Amino acid sequence: MKYTHHNNELNRSHLGMSVYLKGWVAKTRNLGGLIFIDLRDKNGITQLVVLPENSNYDTATRLKSEYVIEAKGKVIERQSKNKNISTGEIEIEVTELIILNEAEMTPIGISHEDNASEEVRLKYRYLDLRRPVMQNYLLKRSQITQAIRESLLEQAFNEFETPILGKSTPEGARDFLVPSRIYPGEFYALPQSPQIYKQLYMVAGFERYFQIARCFRDEDLRADRQLEFTQIDVEASFLTETEIQAVIERTLAHTFKKVLNHEIELPIRKMPYDEAIRSYGSDKPDLRFDLKLQSYNDLLDPLQIPLFADKVVRGFVFNEAEKLTRKELDKLTLLVKKNHADALAFVKLINNELSGSIAKFIANKDAFIEQTNLKEGDILLLVSSSNYEKTSNAAGVLRKEIGESFGLANPNQFEFVWIVDWPLFEFDEENNRFVALHHPFTAPKEHQKHLMKENPKAVMAQAYDIVLNGYEIGGGSIRIHESSIQQTMFEVLGLEKEVIEDRFGFLVGALKYGTPPHGGLALGLDRIVMLMTNTKNIKDVIAFPKTQSARDLMMQAPSGVDSKQLDELKIDFKK
Amino acid sequence: MKYTHHNNELNRSHLGMSVYLKGWVAKTRNLGGLIFIDLRDKNGITQLVVLPENSNYDTATRLKSEYVIEAKGKVIERQSKNKNISTGEIEIEVTELIILNEAEMTPIGISHEDNASEEVRLKYRYLDLRRPVMQNYLLKRSQITQAIRESLLEQAFNEFETPILGKSTPEGARDFLVPSRIYPGEFYALPQSPQIYKQLYMVAGFERYFQIARCFRDEDLRADRQLEFTQIDVEASFLTETEIQAVIERTLAHTFKKVLNHEIELPIRKMPYDEAIRSYGSDKPDLRFDLKLQSYNDLLDPLQIPLFADKVVRGFVFNEAEKLTRKELDKLTLLVKKNHADALAFVKLINNELSGSIAKFIANKDAFIEQTNLKEGDILLLVSSSNYEKTSNAAGVLRKEIGESFGLANPNQFEFVWIVDWPLFEFDEENNRFVALHHPFTAPKEHQKHLMKENPKAVMAQAYDIVLNGYEIGGGSIRIHESSIQQTMFEVLGLEKEVIEDRFGFLVGALKYGTPPHGGLALGLDRIVMLMTNTKNIKDVIAFPKTQSARDLMMQAPSGVDSKQLDELKIDFKK
Repeated sequence: MKYTHHNNELNRSHLGMSVYLKGWVAKTRNLGGLIFIDLRDKNGITQLVVLPENSNYDTATRLKSEYVIEAKGKVIERQSKNKNISTGEIEIEVTELIILNEAEMTPIGISHEDNASEEVRLKYRYLDLRRPVMQNYLLKRSQITQAIRESLLEQAFNEFETPILGKSTPEGARDFLVPSRIYPGEFYALPQSPQIYKQLYMVAGFERYFQIARCFRDEDLRADRQLEFTQIDVEASFLTETEIQAVIERTLAHTFKKVLNHEIELPIRKMPYDEAIRSYGSDKPDLRFDLKLQSYNDLLDPLQIPLFADKVVRGFVFNEAEKLTRKELDKLTLLVKKNHADALAFVKLINNELSGSIAKFIANKDAFIEQTNLKEGDILLLVSSSNYEKTSNAAGVLRKEIGESFGLANPNQFEFVWIVDWPLFEFDEENNRFVALHHPFTAPKEHQKHLMKENPKAVMAQAYDIVLNGYEIGGGSIRIHESSIQQTMFEVLGLEKEVIEDRFGFLVGALKYGTPPHGGLALGLDRIVMLMTNTKNIKDVIAFPKTQSARDLMMQAPSGVDSKQLDELKIDFKK
Repeated sequence: MKYTHHNNELNRSHLGMSVYLKGWVAKTRNLGGLIFIDLRDKNGITQLVVLPENSNYDTATRLKSEYVIEAKGKVIERQSKNKNISTGEIEIEVTELIILNEAEMTPIGISHEDNASEEVRLKYRYLDLRRPVMQNYLLKRSQITQAIRESLLEQAFNEFETPILGKSTPEGARDFLVPSRIYPGEFYALPQSPQIYKQLYMVAGFERYFQIARCFRDEDLRADRQLEFTQIDVEASFLTETEIQAVIERTLAHTFKKVLNHEIELPIRKMPYDEAIRSYGSDKPDLRFDLKLQSYNDLLDPLQIPLFADKVVRGFVFNEAEKLTRKELDKLTLLVKKNHADALAFVKLINNELSGSIAKFIANKDAFIEQTNLKEGDILLLVSSSNYEKTSNAAGVLRKEIGESFGLANPNQFEFVWIVDWPLFEFDEENNRFVALHHPFTAPKEHQKHLMKENPKAVMAQAYDIVLNGYEIGGGSIRIHESSIQQTMFEVLGLEKEVIEDRFGFLVGALKYGTPPHGGLALGLDRIVMLMTNTKNIKDVIAFPKTQSARDLMMQAPSGVDSKQLDELKIDFKK
């Protein structure tokens, strides 16, 4: 093509060369009559210089920021070097300069970190995306996606598509519905995931499927959630839990190596669900820091502290007691209460003295210090509630907050862990029935199949989540491939025959015709990109996101439509 | 992984080896007490043999078609070789045999071409897809997609995503609408293409975008159309028409070479739109055969044939007159009339005599033969109507029909052509206004920009379609990047200010802030796969298609939904 170089490519080795460049004017300066232009493209910046005697000088004086230009010239040595950019030792003495398009003053600044509001950034997203930091996010996203794909192809997976216009199955989250014009009153639904389709690919004998799949959930948005999101959807036949985990580990290792030059140590450690709750109070523990939870009832019950009467008390030791000021502790107390705990208490060891809300109940100081293994400067934080789950969860939230607030979580460290041995069911108190903890196609552990009816609570699933730095980045399971086990599953869930037939009839049918053992996993691409680019806002890694209130501010969607469109769909709105 | 081989891999070089296989029972035979099993996986078939003295013999007798099994055994030489399969010289003497899943009798046959109805095939799609011919279609689709991607990545394109939940812009086809729960009465729309988003990627400075993108049109279905389809969407900045075409040519050449080992001769020939209409009566000519159209008014007008009075007469010579029986010609007459022509006439030259409906008007036979260059056994087919466009179009349909019916179109030949130099506008008689022939973002030829208002009909577009064997497989254009030209375009189209602002406001805005020259193209993946796998039915290359009446027969979609779902959307239906 006619342009000879990108704007990051030229250096001293090109001195004297005639080049042809294009890009955006990042900035211009007139220094003693010489016009200097920073020319930007997606790759970098090159400095152009136009001399007063040059026939393009008039054109050069007209340039403003964000004009699109092309320029021919000769690579010459630069007077004042710029060590911050790869082209900082040269500049281009322009011989020809053409304006390809002009630009008005942009509502947000392009060439630097801009402090425009999120609203303005989203409205002018095409300019926001021109900022180098945003270019980097999206180029990284593209590289990450491709690296994942490479690894899966390398492992004999094929990429297959599944429909976006599917059937509504009102389990799980809320579906987006698409009214049918041909069948008024009937709807297609956008997929929450291609779960059933990928299982049907296995039934059909394709053995190894993946897809970078768009998924949809009509749920209220949170900072790390969008109406539509992208998942790396994987399914394989004839593989065990461990084998599927190994596939994903290779994929993650390849991706982190290729994109970040970061080595993930394989195999990734595995932690049973029970241990995650016990030691970290979370099914997605951040393992970049320790602060392991312990149970303190054995130690505290004999002290008969009124606050802890009939409570489960769990907590952990933090070695920088001085950082937890009164104000800080008040904030943390609110946090654990918000997370359904009853109280937060603490004991500090400062100058070899115990202090804090429950210190007065401790009769034998030395024994207490020995049993808790407290060191000078430590603080023991204690969370209580009426049961083990609530206490563990609140203590886990507290642990996370302290880890993040006091710099224990290194943003450049990546700590992966597989959470395994999940319960197959959980009991839904409200509706007085068992529900599937993952989804109703998840297989029980092979040796516990026979317990599904008689003791559902005891049955563990062949399910696994992968967690990175406290975020669940993916989850999966071995699926039920035997028709009789699927039937038992539906029975334990208390689904009526008609409901089974209506929602899952074809799947139950499919299992009868020679379905291979199979399983898979889905990785959340948006979240992985967010963690790999070290941003906290998922919108940063999505080109055209919706706001928290589900609007596209640039396109102005959703919007009203022509009455003709509604007439064709035979749709009215309730007052 | 524990299985040692796929079922296409073993041959004489593995004799004596212990292997571990898995797959589906394609068929079993009991020959003199020995049980032979054809074991199938997605790669191929291996024959197993179980001897009567083997402890697994009982298991083997239980096997039926489509049971899923795994087997260990030793590779031995086969008595009766099968030359049709790669493993035909060996078989496996089974030492261990496990049934992984059973199978009922399947409603359609798996291991061979099945003549089940399309309805049954779509209902049991997971079984239909198990048939080797369907496996091949979808594996090819996966390979084709990946080859296209490889080539674009190689050419410095990045893959980027665009939203599925967008805004309804009721130009072009009918949008699928998605009601918003949060804003009752408002809708998102599914994209007919990512056209505007990919242009915004260019405005944002990403320079080279592609996406394997899902697109949606709520139009009535035809044999080669689905509600949702996949396109390879490409856009680049700073490239000319020719340069973009070269990108696509390299991509197609790489894909055909890699998947079919077929060499496409580059560059692909280019044909102006005018010539395509003149010589082939179609903007997507099938160039696998000749049958070039010519105009016959100069020759025929002097003969004063009443049928042709005041008509435009065009046609072509076909050299197998004997194939066009009376019955055949009647059918063809209906065909041209259905395509808005007034008449089909013909002149045959048989035994050096002219015959046919208009032969009696030909006074000077020898002159006529010389002027038409008719040879013994030729037939001259003549189509007439009141104008050039209608006549050309009907003659083009006739040409295509004859080419396809009489074996002139070789299914193993691939004839590509770029159709270029399209008109920018066409006049919409019904609404008495100009409309954009492609879309309102298509740029005029650079040297004709100034003619847009004064002589719209004369302005050609920087647009190009790529045609393969008579199918349009892709189309694109250079886009308008100057705000003033875009404004002129909207004016010529007669769009009101409010409409422009409401539908395209952000794009018009975007053009003001330094939009680079850019353009692109979209290739129809489904159609390309159809042509490359030589099937006529687009449903064959889509895993889970809808029927002609827009239903998913397997999932039963669209369907009614819970009243709770409608209540949340505040939707009612008109009686």
